[in-house]
Amino acid sequence: MDFPITRIKGGVGAAKGFLTSAVSCGIKNPKSKRLDLALVYSDRKCTSGGVFTTNKVKAAPIRVSQTNLRKGNFRAVIVNSGNANACTGLQGIHDAKSMCEDAANALDLKKTEVGVCSTGVIGLPMPMVRVSPNIPGLVDGLAAKRGNDFANAIITSDTHEKELAVSFDIGDQRVRIGGCVKGAGMISPSMATMLCFITTDANLSKDCIQHAVSEAAEESFNRITIDGDMSTNDSVIVLANGASGMPVARRNGTACKQFRIVLKWVMLELAKAVVRDGERVTKFVTVNVKGARTHVDAKNVAEAVCKSALVKSSWNGGDPNWGRIIHAVGYSRARIREELIDIFIGGKAACLGGLQADTPMDALRDAVAGPEFVIDIDLNQGEAEYTMFSSDLSPEYVDFNRSEYAYWKQARKDGLV
Amino acid sequence: MDFPITRIKGGVGAAKGFLTSAVSCGIKNPKSKRLDLALVYSDRKCTSGGVFTTNKVKAAPIRVSQTNLRKGNFRAVIVNSGNANACTGLQGIHDAKSMCEDAANALDLKKTEVGVCSTGVIGLPMPMVRVSPNIPGLVDGLAAKRGNDFANAIITSDTHEKELAVSFDIGDQRVRIGGCVKGAGMISPSMATMLCFITTDANLSKDCIQHAVSEAAEESFNRITIDGDMSTNDSVIVLANGASGMPVARRNGTACKQFRIVLKWVMLELAKAVVRDGERVTKFVTVNVKGARTHVDAKNVAEAVCKSALVKSSWNGGDPNWGRIIHAVGYSRARIREELIDIFIGGKAACLGGLQADTPMDALRDAVAGPEFVIDIDLNQGEAEYTMFSSDLSPEYVDFNRSEYAYWKQARKDGLV
Repeated sequence: MDFPITRIKGGVGAAKGFLTSAVSCGIKNPKSKRLDLALVYSDRKCTSGGVFTTNKVKAAPIRVSQTNLRKGNFRAVIVNSGNANACTGLQGIHDAKSMCEDAANALDLKKTEVGVCSTGVIGLPMPMVRVSPNIPGLVDGLAAKRGNDFANAIITSDTHEKELAVSFDIGDQRVRIGGCVKGAGMISPSMATMLCFITTDANLSKDCIQHAVSEAAEESFNRITIDGDMSTNDSVIVLANGASGMPVARRNGTACKQFRIVLKWVMLELAKAVVRDGERVTKFVTVNVKGARTHVDAKNVAEAVCKSALVKSSWNGGDPNWGRIIHAVGYSRARIREELIDIFIGGKAACLGGLQADTPMDALRDAVAGPEFVIDIDLNQGEAEYTMFSSDLSPEYVDFNRSEYAYWKQARKDGLV
Repeated sequence: MDFPITRIKGGVGAAKGFLTSAVSCGIKNPKSKRLDLALVYSDRKCTSGGVFTTNKVKAAPIRVSQTNLRKGNFRAVIVNSGNANACTGLQGIHDAKSMCEDAANALDLKKTEVGVCSTGVIGLPMPMVRVSPNIPGLVDGLAAKRGNDFANAIITSDTHEKELAVSFDIGDQRVRIGGCVKGAGMISPSMATMLCFITTDANLSKDCIQHAVSEAAEESFNRITIDGDMSTNDSVIVLANGASGMPVARRNGTACKQFRIVLKWVMLELAKAVVRDGERVTKFVTVNVKGARTHVDAKNVAEAVCKSALVKSSWNGGDPNWGRIIHAVGYSRARIREELIDIFIGGKAACLGGLQADTPMDALRDAVAGPEFVIDIDLNQGEAEYTMFSSDLSPEYVDFNRSEYAYWKQARKDGLV
């Protein structure tokens, strides 16, 4: 970036005029006090934009939020974790609408001014008996500088909150962007399985904000993969309330362009944080593909490598196995010539012209020993490039995902199934 | 099948006029006596057909065998395990040709009458110093009814040999088909990572045999997945020598049709055996998709479900998690309507019309408790169907594939890297 940005505290509550709140309803676990219902609210009108899962099985809150966003702009978003409200039919739609309506009533907003997101187990009805009574208290708890509680309330199998806020100047005005994100499984491009909420006191036209979030998602959350599974609930929502006092930024203006640069940076940092906190992940791997004939070829190669169970297993083992990488390149459907492919691991040549390079094996092993490393793949066929961020696949990931039976037992106790 | 077939002994050596041999060269491990070089040979002229990997990174033996097969017919195939001879450049081509040539000399054949296959680690030069001197002994050892040694010599991470032979009548003639296969990782459709060798004393025209093997591969090895990784070395080779005495079967004749039916059955049985013996596999899962609008839609749904790390992890845990299945259906790119989808697990309704069915959870858990079960997915959109055979993903699979470093250490000792 050719202008300074400064990290600040406060996450999704850092921008002027935004208040947040979080409570425990017992959705995740009736016995624990884990936060699982959260609200973000702007004290004045907003513009808003969003990007949602392309999975054809869409959770009810996705359908409701998309409809509301088409009608206007959010001024608040209510989010629960522990239950995805997916595959819940008409009852699910009704429940998601109720969440918006209850929040809107307590906030004195129109119900279409509230967005709704859910994350958690698929196929179980929402335990509304625990959610609805908690919404008035959630609204009462709204406060400034409590972004961390919000970030905590939306996580599921994540090990910690992931949030970030920055300030920078647009013209004479100091502007803030804050956000938080949750992972940590079902993470694959288009989009990662995650929820991301961004607030800003920039003043953005509707077309500027939607363009900015679409573009930033393409270059951040659409470039990460943990397990290759795309979820039913992925959402990125951005709210801009103009509280910074800047004049409104239109889509093709300099101010919008500058905002887009910073939003991209913020969302990419949050996307990387999702990978680093992926389920039972031990390695953060950047895969750069260059020399492809087309953008699509470069992307296909990066995705094939980043999703290969064998490649990811070798990363887990600290094995600089370029043979498995090139075999994934081979089945990626990209136009490649085996004898032109170069692969560098941690900057060291592992494969040159499709053949084992001279780098000593121990040097390559050192290159993948740490928690983060870079793989460069040069197809030497053209000028197109693509970068993805991925993780290893660990025995512990599989073990962690063997059963969600505990959720079902709880649902039965609740009389929901 | 509307005609009787009988299982017989002998595997790839069961058909009349075929001899096999296997020796230990120390490719897998110089210290062990594991068989790792094998030969199958017909005592008379053959027709032959083959299907090879569609990975664009093709191992040297694939390139050599494809070229030879284009020129004529194999009468023998030489196979090694322990080294894939892939990503080995011109030296690899030279080594694969040497293997054909040495075998052809000892067998008094033209070198293009010998096919060659390799399986094992990618990217290391073939240890020809151990292979070449063993070829004369390999030829000397040719004998009838030793198919089991051949089946043993081609396996790598497989836990046991996988072979099958049957006899049946075409017209008045008793005909035999025998075969063997190796898995057990890098298994994904188009094709599975595997080698399969089939011999028969049927008398088949060149176009009959190639049509039969292409069709049978499409309905067997292209329908299995273990880890979603397609290899550089996949090969299915069929040799037919006519020793049964039957008149030659032409492509469109009844005899060829009858042969194709049995070949399909044999190859499907071998393909299923590969899944059952997949690396650290504990479950064999048949996924039937029906009610799709097109064949491609049905196939996309089956592949998405069978390749999902989350679905496969739940199978490993004995968790009848239909939510993960429907989420994979949703991102399969098939045209679906969530509210029409039915999912049956072990014949019991888990999801009807996109919603949790009434079947008690314990009944569904019982359905997936055993080592084999069936998932039926009805999209209720059309008439197209597709079936795939898949496995669970276990923590032990990942652990098993964490490192191939032992191979590299050995290669360094051998002065190859």
